Amino acid sequence: MQTAKHLQQIQPSYIREILAAATTEGVISLAGGLPASDHFPLSLMAEGFAKMPDTPALFQYGETRGYKPLLDYLDEHYRVASGHQMLVCSGSQQGLDLIARAFLNPADGVAMEAPCYPGALQVFALAGASIHPVEQNPTGPNLSQLELLFASGKVKLFYAVPDFHNPTGVSWTLDIRKQVAALCRQYEVALIEDAPYRELRFAGQQLPLVASFCPERAMVLRSFSKISTPGMRLGVLSAPEDWLAPLLKVKQASDLHTSIPMQALLLDLLAHPAFPAYLRQLCGIYRERYQALVSALSDYLGQEAIVEPVEGGMFAWLQLPGRDPLAVAKEALAKGVAIVPGNAFFPASESPQAESPVSAIRLNFSHETPGTLREAVRRLASVLV
Amino acid sequence: MQTAKHLQQIQPSYIREILAAATTEGVISLAGGLPASDHFPLSLMAEGFAKMPDTPALFQYGETRGYKPLLDYLDEHYRVASGHQMLVCSGSQQGLDLIARAFLNPADGVAMEAPCYPGALQVFALAGASIHPVEQNPTGPNLSQLELLFASGKVKLFYAVPDFHNPTGVSWTLDIRKQVAALCRQYEVALIEDAPYRELRFAGQQLPLVASFCPERAMVLRSFSKISTPGMRLGVLSAPEDWLAPLLKVKQASDLHTSIPMQALLLDLLAHPAFPAYLRQLCGIYRERYQALVSALSDYLGQEAIVEPVEGGMFAWLQLPGRDPLAVAKEALAKGVAIVPGNAFFPASESPQAESPVSAIRLNFSHETPGTLREAVRRLASVLV
Repeated sequence: MQTAKHLQQIQPSYIREILAAATTEGVISLAGGLPASDHFPLSLMAEGFAKMPDTPALFQYGETRGYKPLLDYLDEHYRVASGHQMLVCSGSQQGLDLIARAFLNPADGVAMEAPCYPGALQVFALAGASIHPVEQNPTGPNLSQLELLFASGKVKLFYAVPDFHNPTGVSWTLDIRKQVAALCRQYEVALIEDAPYRELRFAGQQLPLVASFCPERAMVLRSFSKISTPGMRLGVLSAPEDWLAPLLKVKQASDLHTSIPMQALLLDLLAHPAFPAYLRQLCGIYRERYQALVSALSDYLGQEAIVEPVEGGMFAWLQLPGRDPLAVAKEALAKGVAIVPGNAFFPASESPQAESPVSAIRLNFSHETPGTLREAVRRLASVLV
Repeated sequence: MQTAKHLQQIQPSYIREILAAATTEGVISLAGGLPASDHFPLSLMAEGFAKMPDTPALFQYGETRGYKPLLDYLDEHYRVASGHQMLVCSGSQQGLDLIARAFLNPADGVAMEAPCYPGALQVFALAGASIHPVEQNPTGPNLSQLELLFASGKVKLFYAVPDFHNPTGVSWTLDIRKQVAALCRQYEVALIEDAPYRELRFAGQQLPLVASFCPERAMVLRSFSKISTPGMRLGVLSAPEDWLAPLLKVKQASDLHTSIPMQALLLDLLAHPAFPAYLRQLCGIYRERYQALVSALSDYLGQEAIVEPVEGGMFAWLQLPGRDPLAVAKEALAKGVAIVPGNAFFPASESPQAESPVSAIRLNFSHETPGTLREAVRRLASVLV
């Protein structure tokens, strides 16, 4: 049977292919975006699990928007502005898909930083959107390029990850945040602020959401995959009140609502008195792992270790000037370490293969222990040095 | 912000509105499609819940297709044919949405029985599909109408609920099943067999899936909402192997995968030695409730109680010749009972309002006890008699 037209534009996920290879016995994977499964806060949810069998009300059909007690909690702690409403999604990935389906017609323009999260590229390709990449600098997007693009009238949405960007780890400065918000207002472009890594800060100072400077033109996606667990598939979308109705229509047609037992467990976790301490501990663990990665890179690669420092998140972006990152990824896999080549993070049509190859690879530091990270870098260095 | 074009064609769910009103204190609701929450098999999952906190592997990111041990079980017990593969979805609603997104371009034709499940209408409207209703007889679809439609070449998919149809409760005869399968083969139309109520048979004999007669041209949606619990949001899609890749692409972009802890719990339930006995007990309870509804209708309405008997499922379809079902629904709500008027189950453009009004209402019998069902009918009768 012939597939839908827009589906044919979606590239198979190169990362997923690497991840499959990365499960081979003996391979250390820095390829995935996996949180530390040895530190999941399951003990803080133990009571919630134990009482599940006695709460049949949690197992009936529920409201499309989400489990009311969780929504009340999120309203208090995660809502961006008073004019916003929240919608619980099956992961922030679903939130992004709902936005694309609710607001995009084929050929509508979407701006996004390049490189960027491949899952967002898939969503926008499926919506038939026209992707407009914007160069990313170490402090945020190239503002003059962004303004030119906005002024051209070609763009309806701007998708951005301002905190600990995937794949580069870049965080926008306060000044850039304000200027992007001003541009969104001036040119009436809706901002999609994807903030899955926001709580994973282990250095520097927390900065306001970009959306807080233009709440009436912004939607914010929060993920609970990084601070609770990814397997539960929970995220939340905060949007201006009058944008919620179309999102709810799509959510209802998509899957009626998100699992209620999972939502109830998440509430147990978020409201647990020990949760703030858990988050601090988790950030400490990620700091330690990041530092282990950076030290090993410096020890084994010396001057070849070109990594812009990050203040949080799960990824470091290793520049490899003059190298073919695809070849590096393949050789590294043969040596027992999986990484993702930079190409995977660019729109297919925009992958600047010829003129300026994406000479970088993404390294995940959240999943492995410091000792294993060091061994992974040793193997990687045997390819690079 | 302007919404996507196809979204503007979706009618707000009338049922959802009634359901909202139906939660008013003192109102008995026969409006929803709710399974009996007083009989959820939670005790069979108690052990699974208790061991959750000790199984971090269940909480990491998982495979898009589903949790491997569950897939293995489903392959053995739910796969339609050897050439099929399974995909776990967040409810069969999501399975339907994935099919529409993977295979439909705007204006592609979809045949479906009328009346039909409104959630399917929403999915196909969102895909921009062109809906072709087929008349439903007490033994299945009108075959000559169906063949004419297939022969016209206008239809790519045929969506059907052959077991205990929602809203009418109709089940197709064996002969009709074979003939529909033959038509799908002859005209190369793909069948979507939606079977959420299939396990809820309390009379008559189980018949083969229509898909079993044309597996290479059929996809089957199974729901676990009716036999485990709806709040968990789990269903499974069985499709010919070469149709799976596009479905997986859409699933990945939609939400990466379905909640793994929920999938693990479902496996615990399905594989529990006491599960078959639970299912028999559940069907017995639904039989009892159905009989209570039918007796009450006969006692209170006498000759006005025109209900085609059903052999399972959750719904009875009450004919009300010459009545306006919308007015009946409103008056009934004022008397303290919520029901869904027949109009809600027809495509907006096809609602035969003028010439032959849909003089019927849907009554759910799975959620309330026999005594409450009787009281609901007493209230309804005060409007009708």
